[in-house]
Amino acid sequence: MPRYKLTIEYDGGPFVGWQRQKNGPSVQGALEQAAEKLDGAPREIYGAGRTDSGVHALGQVAHVDLDKDLPADKVRDALNHHLKPHPIAVVEARRVSDAFHARFKANRRGYIYRLQARRAPLTLTRGQVWRVSQDLDVAAMHAAAQHLVGTHDFTTFRDSQCQADSPVKSLDKIAVFQSGAEIHVTVEAISFLHRQVRSIVGSLVEVGLAKWTPEDFKAALDAANRTRCGPVAPPDGLYLAFVQYPGGFELPE
Amino acid sequence: MPRYKLTIEYDGGPFVGWQRQKNGPSVQGALEQAAEKLDGAPREIYGAGRTDSGVHALGQVAHVDLDKDLPADKVRDALNHHLKPHPIAVVEARRVSDAFHARFKANRRGYIYRLQARRAPLTLTRGQVWRVSQDLDVAAMHAAAQHLVGTHDFTTFRDSQCQADSPVKSLDKIAVFQSGAEIHVTVEAISFLHRQVRSIVGSLVEVGLAKWTPEDFKAALDAANRTRCGPVAPPDGLYLAFVQYPGGFELPE
Repeated sequence: MPRYKLTIEYDGGPFVGWQRQKNGPSVQGALEQAAEKLDGAPREIYGAGRTDSGVHALGQVAHVDLDKDLPADKVRDALNHHLKPHPIAVVEARRVSDAFHARFKANRRGYIYRLQARRAPLTLTRGQVWRVSQDLDVAAMHAAAQHLVGTHDFTTFRDSQCQADSPVKSLDKIAVFQSGAEIHVTVEAISFLHRQVRSIVGSLVEVGLAKWTPEDFKAALDAANRTRCGPVAPPDGLYLAFVQYPGGFELPE
Repeated sequence: MPRYKLTIEYDGGPFVGWQRQKNGPSVQGALEQAAEKLDGAPREIYGAGRTDSGVHALGQVAHVDLDKDLPADKVRDALNHHLKPHPIAVVEARRVSDAFHARFKANRRGYIYRLQARRAPLTLTRGQVWRVSQDLDVAAMHAAAQHLVGTHDFTTFRDSQCQADSPVKSLDKIAVFQSGAEIHVTVEAISFLHRQVRSIVGSLVEVGLAKWTPEDFKAALDAANRTRCGPVAPPDGLYLAFVQYPGGFELPE
């Protein structure tokens, strides 16, 4: 069966999360229904990251094996047709070798977290940005965030329900910067712990509000103690931005 | 009665437009209801521009006279409280002199039109961007647009229902450029004709798709004939971005 790599964008608002669950509609479930309509039999979709309820994606990656041997652009268009009216879109499809696996072959993941500091409620970006009603010190947030770069025990910034074997992870890059009216936090690593980005962003906002110094933030990391985490940021502002893979998996059309 | 200048952001999707109408909810109507709840009696809201149904605003400006003499920040917060759950927010309120008038004193208006060229449906920006399914030649669109700068008879780019006395308007600036995954058209003038920006953008897309040359675009303008306009762009991508005024109206708190 030909394998297709799918790059997927979605508004996470109406879903219980990426993963198929009994308690409501999931992104994976919607994609699997679309794939079944396209291929005529149930098909499993494997995603690179299990985004939580309300978390969005600009570049989630998944793979699917189809019985039909179709040009990749045709797979993209047919899945998008069957995905209506869900706010999920396959922005790109590529034929890949059977050695490709969306989750296990990924070697870098990137997230963006969007914040806006203002008193007025959000309108056009409601559910897509975390609004904080006081001003934030972006430079202090960026400085504090740099303590996370490298390999650390991230117990402080890991959900207590996280099922990963180890709390030790390597974080490659993190930046906090003004982007128009918004403040963006971008973060890159091979992989992340459950709620790691939202835990980090929530604690960085404590720094931005001057409730914590950048040194308090480092002390919270070093404590490797979940009770030292700040309030976890809401899912609204979080986007799985991209997933990267080594070369060599894509097949010519 | 103290006069307040309000800077207003809204998602135009659920509204029949800015202006109060019998056939559905309007932005002006929602603001007037909020002002009445705040002030205890009906209050009229005067806007700088009458955006059409589905057109958004990042910086619409309006004024209102209130009986209550409140700090401007308090007026902003109280109106936002009473505006819930409408996707309308007062992002700024200022005390202004009685000489201020949101519509008649404006000396520059700016619009942004957001486009995205891709096959996949929109998800997070659904209703907020015009998706065009073929690639667009942004440089050709920008070149064509420059023919509009200056004073012209804009009959070609004016709705047949437009009530302005004259089709002659001065356009100060227009730019078409890539902005991340989107293409933005920004345009500035003292004032605009009805559907002028959507008529211009729809015709520029004909250039972007290589159906028209930039010279065809100029010929359509010069013809001063509504039948020479391209398909009018949908309201989804249009934003009233800002309204400017001469100095001297704002009062100290």
